[in-house]
Amino acid sequence: MNISHIEHIGIAVNSLEEAIPYYEETLGMKCYAVEEVTDQKVKTAFFMVGQTKIELLESTSPDGPIGKFLEKKGQGVHHLAFAVKDVNESLSELDKKGVRLIDKTSRKGAEGLNIGFLHPKSTMGVLTEICAKE
Amino acid sequence: MNISHIEHIGIAVNSLEEAIPYYEETLGMKCYAVEEVTDQKVKTAFFMVGQTKIELLESTSPDGPIGKFLEKKGQGVHHLAFAVKDVNESLSELDKKGVRLIDKTSRKGAEGLNIGFLHPKSTMGVLTEICAKE
Repeated sequence: MNISHIEHIGIAVNSLEEAIPYYEETLGMKCYAVEEVTDQKVKTAFFMVGQTKIELLESTSPDGPIGKFLEKKGQGVHHLAFAVKDVNESLSELDKKGVRLIDKTSRKGAEGLNIGFLHPKSTMGVLTEICAKE
Repeated sequence: MNISHIEHIGIAVNSLEEAIPYYEETLGMKCYAVEEVTDQKVKTAFFMVGQTKIELLESTSPDGPIGKFLEKKGQGVHHLAFAVKDVNESLSELDKKGVRLIDKTSRKGAEGLNIGFLHPKSTMGVLTEICAKE
């Protein structure tokens, strides 16, 4: 598996309305997209920082994954996403290496990327996503 | 404040001996340095992923910051570090914008970088470091 860079860092926030001005006005980044991912019950806001995106995640329902995360842990880094060439190939390789997978095969995520999640039990506590453009 | 890229992601782990093989053999990254930062009571291992380093942090004492973090939250992402040109200028700018600072002025961190930490109460839950080479 060849990871080229960190594609994005997913950060759970209580409110995009509160968080976007912090990233823009305080840190000087520029929000270039806001997108709702209905099946994940989140609204996302994207910022580019060098090679890597910051993806802010606001829950749209308390029973979604970010809603549950916020209730349990509060605001903070939710997951790291590594860019790979082919998500299904990488998932298959990780499966053979004994990594516990949340997604056995790739699915579509925000920005139309192919994505797959690894279980934090296998990744030293970091919820890890791998993703690729096609 | 001009953030050029994400300099590193600090990840708290129980054991470098367990975590380094996961990052190397499972994810295919290469550990290029192991360093002890005695005043922070941590042993660190570094991996380069594109522009960004992954900095694994193992506690060397339960009363250090990583020891306390691990006890409270378990393994996972501990902080994000943004690369800036001048840490003291940036800290001063952030202070004026009302950001609560852990470090009022820069200090030396791992790899000889000038660093300063912002308080997660002011940063939407993400313990945030800014750093610069000089």
